[in-house]
Amino acid sequence: MAHINDLPSWVFDETDHTFMNEALVEAAIAGARGEVPVGAVLVHDGAIIARSGNRREELQDPTAHAEILVLGAAGREIGDWRLENATLFVTLEPCPMCLEACRQARLALIVWGTPDPLMGACGSVLDAAEDPRLHPPIAQRGGLLADNASKLLKEFFAKKRLSS
Amino acid sequence: MAHINDLPSWVFDETDHTFMNEALVEAAIAGARGEVPVGAVLVHDGAIIARSGNRREELQDPTAHAEILVLGAAGREIGDWRLENATLFVTLEPCPMCLEACRQARLALIVWGTPDPLMGACGSVLDAAEDPRLHPPIAQRGGLLADNASKLLKEFFAKKRLSS
Repeated sequence: MAHINDLPSWVFDETDHTFMNEALVEAAIAGARGEVPVGAVLVHDGAIIARSGNRREELQDPTAHAEILVLGAAGREIGDWRLENATLFVTLEPCPMCLEACRQARLALIVWGTPDPLMGACGSVLDAAEDPRLHPPIAQRGGLLADNASKLLKEFFAKKRLSS
Repeated sequence: MAHINDLPSWVFDETDHTFMNEALVEAAIAGARGEVPVGAVLVHDGAIIARSGNRREELQDPTAHAEILVLGAAGREIGDWRLENATLFVTLEPCPMCLEACRQARLALIVWGTPDPLMGACGSVLDAAEDPRLHPPIAQRGGLLADNASKLLKEFFAKKRLSS
């Protein structure tokens, strides 16, 4: 398995940065609500059609990761659960649940921010995106604005430790 | 990887059969709505607290597998996304998305019906339930009323081929 540090440094353009900044806004809002601060936006035909932060605590729904919520909202928005040609921007490396949801939604690409050493399915714990047993293949690129995403998470958990 | 045919023959009791029959009812209803006929129930403290069929087409939500829907409904029902001690009964071997959702919800056990040779994550395609890189561990037992679940799926796809 390739270690996350071995991943190539992708070249992200200004538009990628713009969309990831929107995902970071969702992450920050989620953190302010007491959720682990992770955010996502779904881009289709060059525009954001769904955006959400993590809402697991608010909804008491174990599946309410930001990615799952934007995939559902995006499908409803365009009236088709097949989100071909769409790109997900998410501040944290997806877990195996969210990675597989993206694959089944037939996304063109996942762009993620900071690695998740505990649950990351794009190289940190699993390489699920490149597992040849799973279809269809899905492309992913990590590391965009990773420091911003990581800072939100670190501050959240530091505060949590102080208050517990 | 253990092949599905190598899995032990679990001993299921009458209660297990009762709950799986309820999941089969949900699968049949889903099929009548034009969904791939898969159904699930979530059992907590000996009672069904959530039930659903697959609603991917109805909701145009790529994540709307029966398992994802019952996990969300169950969390809302008991006011806690941590569904420890709960058991999921589902008519089809879970895909990697649903398997991981069950793990993160901290379910005690998944009981499933018929194997899924295309996407099954409990032995058919992946052995995700037993992957030591993923935590916490989750127990699963397959094959309960498999023929009933399989018959629903076969009839559904046979009809679909006729009408297409």
